[in-house]
Amino acid sequence: MSMAVYAGTFDPVTYGHLDVLHRAAKIFDTVIIAVAPNTGKNPMFTVEERMDMIREACAGDKNILVETLDGLLVDYAKARGATVLIRGLRVISDFEYEFQMTQMNRELQPSLETLFFMPSQKYAFTSSTIVKQVARYDTDRIANHVPPCVAAALKKRFSLR
Amino acid sequence: MSMAVYAGTFDPVTYGHLDVLHRAAKIFDTVIIAVAPNTGKNPMFTVEERMDMIREACAGDKNILVETLDGLLVDYAKARGATVLIRGLRVISDFEYEFQMTQMNRELQPSLETLFFMPSQKYAFTSSTIVKQVARYDTDRIANHVPPCVAAALKKRFSLR
Amino acid sequence: MSMAVYAGTFDPVTYGHLDVLHRAAKIFDTVIIAVAPNTGKNPMFTVEERMDMIREACAGDKNILVETLDGLLVDYAKARGATVLIRGLRVISDFEYEFQMTQMNRELQPSLETLFFMPSQKYAFTSSTIVKQVARYDTDRIANHVPPCVAAALKKRFSLR
Amino acid sequence: MSMAVYAGTFDPVTYGHLDVLHRAAKIFDTVIIAVAPNTGKNPMFTVEERMDMIREACAGDKNILVETLDGLLVDYAKARGATVLIRGLRVISDFEYEFQMTQMNRELQPSLETLFFMPSQKYAFTSSTIVKQVARYDTDRIANHVPPCVAAALKKRFSLR
Amino acid sequence: MSMAVYAGTFDPVTYGHLDVLHRAAKIFDTVIIAVAPNTGKNPMFTVEERMDMIREACAGDKNILVETLDGLLVDYAKARGATVLIRGLRVISDFEYEFQMTQMNRELQPSLETLFFMPSQKYAFTSSTIVKQVARYDTDRIANHVPPCVAAALKKRFSLR
Amino acid sequence: MSMAVYAGTFDPVTYGHLDVLHRAAKIFDTVIIAVAPNTGKNPMFTVEERMDMIREACAGDKNILVETLDGLLVDYAKARGATVLIRGLRVISDFEYEFQMTQMNRELQPSLETLFFMPSQKYAFTSSTIVKQVARYDTDRIANHVPPCVAAALKKRFSLR
Repeated sequence: MSMAVYAGTFDPVTYGHLDVLHRAAKIFDTVIIAVAPNTGKNPMFTVEERMDMIREACAGDKNILVETLDGLLVDYAKARGATVLIRGLRVISDFEYEFQMTQMNRELQPSLETLFFMPSQKYAFTSSTIVKQVARYDTDRIANHVPPCVAAALKKRFSLR
Repeated sequence: MSMAVYAGTFDPVTYGHLDVLHRAAKIFDTVIIAVAPNTGKNPMFTVEERMDMIREACAGDKNILVETLDGLLVDYAKARGATVLIRGLRVISDFEYEFQMTQMNRELQPSLETLFFMPSQKYAFTSSTIVKQVARYDTDRIANHVPPCVAAALKKRFSLR
Repeated sequence: MSMAVYAGTFDPVTYGHLDVLHRAAKIFDTVIIAVAPNTGKNPMFTVEERMDMIREACAGDKNILVETLDGLLVDYAKARGATVLIRGLRVISDFEYEFQMTQMNRELQPSLETLFFMPSQKYAFTSSTIVKQVARYDTDRIANHVPPCVAAALKKRFSLR
Repeated sequence: MSMAVYAGTFDPVTYGHLDVLHRAAKIFDTVIIAVAPNTGKNPMFTVEERMDMIREACAGDKNILVETLDGLLVDYAKARGATVLIRGLRVISDFEYEFQMTQMNRELQPSLETLFFMPSQKYAFTSSTIVKQVARYDTDRIANHVPPCVAAALKKRFSLR
Repeated sequence: MSMAVYAGTFDPVTYGHLDVLHRAAKIFDTVIIAVAPNTGKNPMFTVEERMDMIREACAGDKNILVETLDGLLVDYAKARGATVLIRGLRVISDFEYEFQMTQMNRELQPSLETLFFMPSQKYAFTSSTIVKQVARYDTDRIANHVPPCVAAALKKRFSLR
Repeated sequence: MSMAVYAGTFDPVTYGHLDVLHRAAKIFDTVIIAVAPNTGKNPMFTVEERMDMIREACAGDKNILVETLDGLLVDYAKARGATVLIRGLRVISDFEYEFQMTQMNRELQPSLETLFFMPSQKYAFTSSTIVKQVARYDTDRIANHVPPCVAAALKKRFSLR
């Protein structure tokens, strides 16, 4: 049984992330989407909130598991029995970081392979950062980029402020 | 009558920004330079201070208006009657962000077109960040990159510390 | 009256080129699409064939003129009375060349401004080269990327071989 | 049974290619390495010679098949029953081309997924082009980058000239 | 006597930095490694701690001096009698910043030349940031990227938390 | 005595190349500019013509030697007693190739170090290719980019056609 881990902050999850996730879920028996607490980046949503949104967006996908990333990614993936790490391939930004991280992960755990997926063209420029910037003013206009539950969460968050 | 909006943080405005602004002002009847509050980036100068510096640098340019960017850029531009958004084309950095933002703005408001201008070669590497780094030590040595009023404001700011 | 020149090889023209062209035609009174002979690149179609395809694709666009680029681009644009050069902004490739060419054109003719347009997201990855590679095998499958007259010309070209 | 296709010119195959190939062969039941005739690039070795070198380098790998790429890649992969296309991820060059090709292939055949593998760090900068440039002068010094049979073929080729 | 300055935050120093440093030390009579206080970046180690780690890692290198960067880099280098600034060449990230900084430094002090060194391939993807991310979980696994004294300092730092 | 080699096609030499050359000549006792025959690229000028232009442009520079690159660069440099290879740092293009070549040269001859120089900002976008494109139409307009002897040679070359 093949298992892959797709780790990230997902603050919040976008259709771009979900596109990569579903592409991976067609190839591997199980895909774990592992939500990183990422206290350093000062996320907008808690890990639990981010996981809930993904769970709702992926309801019905039987081979997708939503988990919290605990500890070092390669150790976590190994402990879970995964053999593959999934990354979405962004056009330019943080490309160097991707190389650094992939080589470091390979060194730490040579049995884990990192695979890059390219998102659908319609999500090629979707980003959590820009979604949040637009949502600050009008959450009705990000419907092409995030699932309804994420739009609702952003609406609630910004109206509370 | 053609109107374009050139939005940014301008913290502070440089000769690079002014070069792009004046190039746009030759092509469009009116160019609004819209200063974003940008509370997220923790700017060095207040919106009002940044606008004052631009106003002084552009004194005499009758078709340039200095305004505060209020709300979502595309809504603001639409409300002002503009049909074009202006961006300066930087060599590499934040290039992906430019693509993401342009595609998002186009989706939000298809009637607005984004045009990219390349600054003069002599300002190709000018940046607000580096200007501030140098000004921290010696405000007399940034005269090639910012107008006198900006150099004076930086001098005052750093001597107060 | 504002006039812009959009020069290129257009071997053959794609919907990506036409998207940029029509965006420019909304902003300027007249846009000349200037087809470069480009003997160096060994094009698949003659200048006249390439112009015919563009003419057919732009039939009805009254402010678009299809011409042959004769001599140095900046001299040609100046002689025609244009004040703006149009370039499509590709994600990465030949980006350095764009900078070199823009700075050289500005030096040769400072009164001409170069503006960069970003194509629609759906044509963000369309290229003449890839269109020709696919058309070599099946011209029915490039219909999303080139107008019917171009698909027909490619079909004829490849069936003759 | 999962099957993937790794297509390219492989003129000649390097340890960088073989590294990607073996990584893919750990994940998929079968990997076809499909050698493109590529008459356009004017290759140094014939398709048959290139296939022979790969066959020798992969002798003993039971789940790797060496074939000739015939027709459009997506049609070939579909006809062979593959569901995945493999690409090696190079640091920078031809990155735009990769995006263009991946999106086009996805459009032509949505059931095929393209996966990118990053080669081992020690082959991160290996390239057929540079191998050939060095081999022109001294085929004994490329032993870190190509298998012995390729070094021998290059030696023979250059001594014949 | 030729003298070069290699400035940076070095928070903490890695084998990648030391590789560049030793390459420079073979070419110049003296190389000063100048540690920037960099209060803006909120470093993990104090300047003194960072200098101590470098001193220990470079013990025995007679032509390497470890100093604190005081004031503007170009003024500091000039005052010390240096004629060259050293930079490590990273594959992609912050490349624009490198160009901006080099041109600004050249303008501020034309007699200083900036030279870029490429690190060894095995450190091509080493970064302080990723070293710290891994060390947070397991300081025994970064031994390929930092000297023992740095690994020990990271271990102490993270166990204290 | 320190010696560096600056190799290239120089077809023809530009002020950008000469700027890098003179920067290197301030740091090293001797700089050899080694002109590669480069039969593959089908150069416009013969090696001898290219060397003559460089000799005329560098007349009076006592520590610059103009030679023909014979054989593999690293062997040539070693045989001449050089310890450093010089490269001009271009903004983007062929950057991957630079990395590949530098790592290969280092592997072939570890005692040779490759140093990258950034050209003056005014030559940041100068290229032999664009100089030739413009010269084809008007050799009087490239005077900012090439020395008079090169402009004269281009004039003669294009008038002969």
